[in-house]
Amino acid sequence: MPVKVCIVGCGALGSVFAGHLARLSDIEVHAYDVSEEHTRAINDSGLKITGAANFTAKLRVSSDPQQIPACDFGIFATKSLHTRAAIEQTAHIFADSAAVCSVQNGLGNEEIIAERVRYVIRGATPIAAHLIAPGHAGFEFYSDIWIGPFEPSATPYNYVEQLAALLARAGLQVVPLQDARGWQWTKLVFNSAVNPVGALTQLHLGAANRLPPTAALYEAILQEGEAVARALGITLSGDPRKMIAEGAGAPGRRNVSMLQDIRAKRPTEIDFMNGAIADLGEKLGVPVPLNRTMWALVKGLEHSWTDPA
Amino acid sequence: MPVKVCIVGCGALGSVFAGHLARLSDIEVHAYDVSEEHTRAINDSGLKITGAANFTAKLRVSSDPQQIPACDFGIFATKSLHTRAAIEQTAHIFADSAAVCSVQNGLGNEEIIAERVRYVIRGATPIAAHLIAPGHAGFEFYSDIWIGPFEPSATPYNYVEQLAALLARAGLQVVPLQDARGWQWTKLVFNSAVNPVGALTQLHLGAANRLPPTAALYEAILQEGEAVARALGITLSGDPRKMIAEGAGAPGRRNVSMLQDIRAKRPTEIDFMNGAIADLGEKLGVPVPLNRTMWALVKGLEHSWTDPA
Repeated sequence: MPVKVCIVGCGALGSVFAGHLARLSDIEVHAYDVSEEHTRAINDSGLKITGAANFTAKLRVSSDPQQIPACDFGIFATKSLHTRAAIEQTAHIFADSAAVCSVQNGLGNEEIIAERVRYVIRGATPIAAHLIAPGHAGFEFYSDIWIGPFEPSATPYNYVEQLAALLARAGLQVVPLQDARGWQWTKLVFNSAVNPVGALTQLHLGAANRLPPTAALYEAILQEGEAVARALGITLSGDPRKMIAEGAGAPGRRNVSMLQDIRAKRPTEIDFMNGAIADLGEKLGVPVPLNRTMWALVKGLEHSWTDPA
Repeated sequence: MPVKVCIVGCGALGSVFAGHLARLSDIEVHAYDVSEEHTRAINDSGLKITGAANFTAKLRVSSDPQQIPACDFGIFATKSLHTRAAIEQTAHIFADSAAVCSVQNGLGNEEIIAERVRYVIRGATPIAAHLIAPGHAGFEFYSDIWIGPFEPSATPYNYVEQLAALLARAGLQVVPLQDARGWQWTKLVFNSAVNPVGALTQLHLGAANRLPPTAALYEAILQEGEAVARALGITLSGDPRKMIAEGAGAPGRRNVSMLQDIRAKRPTEIDFMNGAIADLGEKLGVPVPLNRTMWALVKGLEHSWTDPA
């Protein structure tokens, strides 16, 4: 029996995972996605990846979770605000002791998945991608994928190693870790600065990092997130400032995903980023006025779509 | 010799003052405004006021300050970021011991005017107006106009009383005070909450005041401003919360002027509002993270017009 993997949420990021894994001939790749237009395009013509890698992969994708067989591994790549709905739809696929890994942004996804799945793997990655057309994802750059056991699930480490081996064979840069929290928080703290500032000011990452007022604001937000991590006993594995410098120095104008969401009038992941940091900080007695403020302003901006000025 | 008054900046707010004063037959009203289209319309057809009052007033307005005679009183109603340029253009009009009253938003206008004018009067008012067309101002509502001596000028109080008498005879609600700082700060602290939140979220005042995240943000910003006022020894004369409730409860959707500026891609008054409060707070050791953050985000938004995402 070949190993079966199901990608839940085959959007931009999910397509990068699904496309790479589908190139392995000895495993079976399935995907669940709510977009019927996107799934039809993939089933008809394959999943096209362009950018940092260029290939077309054949895989089975469906908007009907009942069509997907039981799998050994899951990779969760929906927007954070769809995690709950997606795991309710797909939990049966992972009922037979499968391990499900979140590679999503923000905090709290693993907790939601673990309500329905026995073994959960914590994951984070700076990989960026965007949908170009139905069935076609633009893959911006390869980057590390950090994965480790989700602690409350007591996920056996060999599940992490097996998944890491699959991803590495598929050509992705995977880093299996006993504790992935340090990297997850590095990415989270990075996101908590660049995402709301980009969404609220309409500045690309390089411009915001060069302008002294917004550069100072980045730093102040980073420091709050780092203080919350310390209060949780988590040591950041990387430096979010380095991620900012890399993004700011990349060719072209890097627009954060939250600005793309705001421009498309899609609900953002603010609750899972600054909202989650602010909630934790307030619970732990760590001052988080800027995270709370970023959260409030982005919630306000989302609300303006239904009650405009 | 009739009393001569010059309105500097005959935009929306300046037009409300100029129009009312021009109805008094025993004084001579002049105005300076940089818009040649607006001044031509007023000189050709009079200044039209509609809304809370409806009338057309004849007055002399010019874009050339050399055409304006020496005056006894000045009323400064430019946007705060034009104060310095405007007083450099018009100082000669007030050289003969005239008293010049700022009715502008924010902090620091009186200080700039006082560099060039002997007697300065501090002023503030919640009056709102908007330009409908050249020569035509929409006057939203009557409200108090608080005026008092600018302390460093040691302006004699009878100048304040004389100006108050003129404004009252012209039909405006004027409140002469020995110390106008308490009302100026009430208005400033109100503005420091509603203006950047409206500009950044695109919410009208009523919507932002009803949405719990932005309502809580209003309150947090107000508390910072009140703490800075206390550290300066200034007691607020009114409650900015009452001003918010009144604006939120007014019929229709009240859009703050900073949102109008942002939509028109005009530089905002953020330096004179949250920027000024943040500078003072940091100098006095009063925590002002939210004022500094509002300032940084609005500066970023202004910058996005020249370096867009």
